[in-house]
Amino acid sequence: MRKIVLSILIMSSFFSFAQKSEKKMKPSDTELWEPKVNVVKPGVNNAAPSDAIVLFDGKDLSQWVSVKDSTAANWHLNKDGSMTVKNKAGDIRTKQSFGSVQLHIEWKSPSEVNGEGQSRGNSGIFLQSQYEVQVLDNNNNATYVNGQVASIYKQSVPLVHAAVETGGWNAYDIIYHAPEFDLGGNLTKQATITVLLNGVLVQDHFNILGPTVFIGHPKYSKHGKAPLKLQDHRDNSRVSYRNIWVRELE
Amino acid sequence: MRKIVLSILIMSSFFSFAQKSEKKMKPSDTELWEPKVNVVKPGVNNAAPSDAIVLFDGKDLSQWVSVKDSTAANWHLNKDGSMTVKNKAGDIRTKQSFGSVQLHIEWKSPSEVNGEGQSRGNSGIFLQSQYEVQVLDNNNNATYVNGQVASIYKQSVPLVHAAVETGGWNAYDIIYHAPEFDLGGNLTKQATITVLLNGVLVQDHFNILGPTVFIGHPKYSKHGKAPLKLQDHRDNSRVSYRNIWVRELE
Amino acid sequence: MRKIVLSILIMSSFFSFAQKSEKKMKPSDTELWEPKVNVVKPGVNNAAPSDAIVLFDGKDLSQWVSVKDSTAANWHLNKDGSMTVKNKAGDIRTKQSFGSVQLHIEWKSPSEVNGEGQSRGNSGIFLQSQYEVQVLDNNNNATYVNGQVASIYKQSVPLVHAAVETGGWNAYDIIYHAPEFDLGGNLTKQATITVLLNGVLVQDHFNILGPTVFIGHPKYSKHGKAPLKLQDHRDNSRVSYRNIWVRELE
Amino acid sequence: MRKIVLSILIMSSFFSFAQKSEKKMKPSDTELWEPKVNVVKPGVNNAAPSDAIVLFDGKDLSQWVSVKDSTAANWHLNKDGSMTVKNKAGDIRTKQSFGSVQLHIEWKSPSEVNGEGQSRGNSGIFLQSQYEVQVLDNNNNATYVNGQVASIYKQSVPLVHAAVETGGWNAYDIIYHAPEFDLGGNLTKQATITVLLNGVLVQDHFNILGPTVFIGHPKYSKHGKAPLKLQDHRDNSRVSYRNIWVRELE
Repeated sequence: MRKIVLSILIMSSFFSFAQKSEKKMKPSDTELWEPKVNVVKPGVNNAAPSDAIVLFDGKDLSQWVSVKDSTAANWHLNKDGSMTVKNKAGDIRTKQSFGSVQLHIEWKSPSEVNGEGQSRGNSGIFLQSQYEVQVLDNNNNATYVNGQVASIYKQSVPLVHAAVETGGWNAYDIIYHAPEFDLGGNLTKQATITVLLNGVLVQDHFNILGPTVFIGHPKYSKHGKAPLKLQDHRDNSRVSYRNIWVRELE
Repeated sequence: MRKIVLSILIMSSFFSFAQKSEKKMKPSDTELWEPKVNVVKPGVNNAAPSDAIVLFDGKDLSQWVSVKDSTAANWHLNKDGSMTVKNKAGDIRTKQSFGSVQLHIEWKSPSEVNGEGQSRGNSGIFLQSQYEVQVLDNNNNATYVNGQVASIYKQSVPLVHAAVETGGWNAYDIIYHAPEFDLGGNLTKQATITVLLNGVLVQDHFNILGPTVFIGHPKYSKHGKAPLKLQDHRDNSRVSYRNIWVRELE
Repeated sequence: MRKIVLSILIMSSFFSFAQKSEKKMKPSDTELWEPKVNVVKPGVNNAAPSDAIVLFDGKDLSQWVSVKDSTAANWHLNKDGSMTVKNKAGDIRTKQSFGSVQLHIEWKSPSEVNGEGQSRGNSGIFLQSQYEVQVLDNNNNATYVNGQVASIYKQSVPLVHAAVETGGWNAYDIIYHAPEFDLGGNLTKQATITVLLNGVLVQDHFNILGPTVFIGHPKYSKHGKAPLKLQDHRDNSRVSYRNIWVRELE
Repeated sequence: MRKIVLSILIMSSFFSFAQKSEKKMKPSDTELWEPKVNVVKPGVNNAAPSDAIVLFDGKDLSQWVSVKDSTAANWHLNKDGSMTVKNKAGDIRTKQSFGSVQLHIEWKSPSEVNGEGQSRGNSGIFLQSQYEVQVLDNNNNATYVNGQVASIYKQSVPLVHAAVETGGWNAYDIIYHAPEFDLGGNLTKQATITVLLNGVLVQDHFNILGPTVFIGHPKYSKHGKAPLKLQDHRDNSRVSYRNIWVRELE
């Protein structure tokens, strides 16, 4: 092999370069006019946009049931428009099932600090009931970094710790895409998740490894749409939630 | 081929299943304690988080220069903490160069409506000076959908139209990853972009096709870090900007 | 957006182009001298290369056992250096387990034609005991195309039908890469297979969908190295094999 | 997060498992009968299969022209059905242009050893005139390993050195897929190449980095179909070729 540069020049007459036809293009050739884009009225101060499904606006828990027995969710409904985990009431889930979504959800840990490590202000937001974004008060409270607030529990450490002071309201803005499977049940596309905590990027298009597990390594099983689940961590972690809405993504 | 199921059972003794060892695992086996995660104080009402680089806080244009000749940026500085495109002053860019970033930027179109189509309240935010997120007043103002507000100009139609009323302030929250190239200059990873407009997802991890072009199809050229650029569309489109900050991503 | 071309020219001084430094390179900069490459003596007329593991050279079946009970393989050993499926003796497999391999294997269907469709000269070569390359006499014998000779059974139609006349020897040259799994057992890389039949490309880097199944869709299960298996189709399909060797690939 | 296992069991009733419907499937559900597969008569002893385009069968050089000036190729035509590089005649190329192909080509280095390193029996096979599979006599002749026989020149070291003794005929069986580009000229899929040398796998689905270059790093440029090229290395390297055929791949 030698003097390739020269031979490339010589050979170039054989190649068809699309760039030539590019020169004849007009600006309008790359305009797309259809289909029209839906108009959405954005919310003010994190309120639900006009096309969102409101899952909790502070008035009632009508969109939620108990995970245990599908009876009415009996977490505490507070006068300030929030709800609080009720000890031993267990996890709650939405009645509706979802695939890929944009999710907005706000939460706060109790002002009175109790417990330490994973036992302080612990709850969790489970996309499709299986994939957990950690909720935890680990302000001045060390824990394993793949289990701290804004982690994808035991899978992905958050980029930064961006929680507000204990007792204040935090906001998650989540872009979640459901995993995909083939006819035989093989995973063909991992679930992905991007999370902003209080406007700060904490998870950046992470490829979820499988359902959240406490012990061992995650393993996907084929599933379809599934409810959003909120966790009762059963250790007196009275976390509160408010202003929950989702927008379904394709 | 026949009775595969049976033979798989027979053969299974030859396979080493990792799942067996999974059963012996303890919860602590999947805990990660290092490195520690940096603490960031989030901003209130879209203010810059503690680790952000503030590019414009309303006080001066010291972080910006003219694209044309690198002299001081001479767009209008307003008393309300915003700046406005100055006709014929041309595009401005940051002094600092960036790769992948989280970007927050707010903008509004003039309250007095002038022009139509692409000539009404048109500007643009160019990541790395090359990849444009469209800024446009197309409220009741039809244009090509891959050129409307929140499009990746001539590349990606926004998921929805989520702008506020003309004359009001809009906010973009952008997660941008720079393209990657090999030693020879071949593209090895497209740039990606996720955009929230007023809290509503409008671009969902789009793979950017190349630098924004008005005519023809985009073509990447290898580059490194580059400034953020804001556009003077030169058609009396006096768009204003405020509260601009970035956080560098790896 | 407008006059992008001009602004790109202006901006280009900010970009670091690797191409510039390319100009200072010397030819020797892209030479690699280590590690040295192993020398292999190729075989003549499809004989095993010097680094191959010979699985059958016509002398005995010492490398093979019955799949059913792991006793000695009791297929017919012929005087011409081949072996033939023994009816009801069942499938046989290698004693040794393999991952990714280059496999050479020759086979012929009985000269006397018996049966039709999948019941004429049917056998199969199962990589890692699970992934079947079909062996079938479908010369002038219609069957479903994803089950004909050189198909990945019920997964991939061969590019062409390149078998020799019934009763003649065919040669498969196969490049197979084992599937990969993560710690939890999720598939992270499909098995791939390239097959030449009598020197003609019939499977072109096909991504295997999962273990071969007669009914339903394939589903991967995590496994490690596994034996090569040859099928007794139990329908009087006395297919013969000869000259079998593998080279392990990383 | 806690007791995930239990909650997964509880939640499972919300999931739709495709596996359930799998149980109702019949064998015929996964049979494919159309389109029919073309029949190809394979060649004996590496002769061209019935669907191949024969580029050189020893009778004449009618399929070839000089790269320099497109006049008739004037390499030596030998009585034994081979052709030999003619010193200073320059590279030759096929009249026909190709995209993705299966290529069979045989070559030998001169029996009388002259020169050393890259100056002994050096030629090259350029797919689409740009991507070189190295031809070299480096039996007992050290050179850089990414420039030795069966390398993708300066890009990929061969897995093993599987050439026959100097002066003997070697055979390459090559599966090559052309690179793909988008409308703007960005590379969207690298060219890939698999090479068997004398029946031994030497390149295993390598992703080609760009056109072969002697200095610096490869960089793709958009192109369409292009001729096969054979190299005159201009250093008295009188390499011979014979039995050249291609089969076009999609």
